[in-house]
Amino acid sequence: MLLSGGLDSATVLAIARQQGFAVHGLTIRYGQRHGHELACAKRLAHDLGATNHAIIDLDLRTFGGSALTADLDVPKGRSDVEIGRGIPITYVPARNMIFLSMAMALAETIGARDLFIGVNAVDYSGYPDCRPDFIEAFQHAATLGTKAGDEGANIVIHTPLMKLRKAEIIGRGRELGVDFALTSTCYDPEHDGRACGECDACHLRLQGFAEAGLTDPACYARESARSR
Amino acid sequence: MLLSGGLDSATVLAIARQQGFAVHGLTIRYGQRHGHELACAKRLAHDLGATNHAIIDLDLRTFGGSALTADLDVPKGRSDVEIGRGIPITYVPARNMIFLSMAMALAETIGARDLFIGVNAVDYSGYPDCRPDFIEAFQHAATLGTKAGDEGANIVIHTPLMKLRKAEIIGRGRELGVDFALTSTCYDPEHDGRACGECDACHLRLQGFAEAGLTDPACYARESARSR
Repeated sequence: MLLSGGLDSATVLAIARQQGFAVHGLTIRYGQRHGHELACAKRLAHDLGATNHAIIDLDLRTFGGSALTADLDVPKGRSDVEIGRGIPITYVPARNMIFLSMAMALAETIGARDLFIGVNAVDYSGYPDCRPDFIEAFQHAATLGTKAGDEGANIVIHTPLMKLRKAEIIGRGRELGVDFALTSTCYDPEHDGRACGECDACHLRLQGFAEAGLTDPACYARESARSR
Repeated sequence: MLLSGGLDSATVLAIARQQGFAVHGLTIRYGQRHGHELACAKRLAHDLGATNHAIIDLDLRTFGGSALTADLDVPKGRSDVEIGRGIPITYVPARNMIFLSMAMALAETIGARDLFIGVNAVDYSGYPDCRPDFIEAFQHAATLGTKAGDEGANIVIHTPLMKLRKAEIIGRGRELGVDFALTSTCYDPEHDGRACGECDACHLRLQGFAEAGLTDPACYARESARSR
């Protein structure tokens, strides 16, 4: 499974474990501005009972083109309407396609038949590579383009969060014992890992906790963020 | 375009240039056993008039699973019949899927609308990710999963070698001025870059030159390879 260190993939890990899977986590260090989410991924893999956790480097800063991989400002304080309008500057070109391909490579190498990813098409940031039709098309390409698929041992992509609202993901993770204090969501955290509370990712997270009637245990740079 | 340093991608570069494209080459250092083909890629990009050439690291040895990325023997001296039988140990899990995804990321970032790759479904080594149906399925996934595709500015995958025999590729490259002495094909070259002459890739290359009625200008560890 693809494990980012965020709230969504932490919940996916807990779901896969509950379904009885031995989980091999894959985290890609792609040039994010900060190492905090990698530390979270490591801790989550351990605490939620992953069998293995691989971290692989792929420096997408070589390409740039996103607020997450180039020296561009992360948008702050945007409303739901603004977030809903088109694909934002935090979109990393072809990221999920690259990540899914790498997860397919790992799955094929270790003989796994199931691949989990925490994409979500409801409370998301408008990324085209989070939508069901993309996942379905990628699944088809992967079946045709791998030895596993060629030999009839297809690797199936699971997207258990696809149709859940953020509040439902949080509720599901809580039931399964995910410690959300260990998850990192912010696009632009402080050096100590505290979340900004103002980027699109923080906005969607805080709104999800509010809708779920829960308090977000993450640390924010300004405590006022939590009561937005 | 994806530029490996091999005979096929060198010819693709010459074709794209002849068609009037400004070429941005992308070479992925994925943990190949040797650096010779990277040196070839650099030289080819320069000599054949690429506008830019990016090299990006992605250490697929983290996963292993192939004779090209793990400590496994490269098969030598196999016949056409043996080569034609199934997917060999030199298959790198999901490699073209990963490479195409990365090329899509670069294309999207720089605003390119055309992506070239030197895959070939005729005289090839039995890799599933070289077949037309895989490329077509990947194209569909990429259209759905990228901002470019979402905005109606689809990035089109070109595979000018798909239906050519190796001898035809060599003939085409020769017409366009490719210096095949600068291309590296061997799966298991000597430290000085000389080809083994006995792996599947050398076999297909030498057979292609023979069919084309040409002498391969590459250096082989044993001169007898050329007259197989």
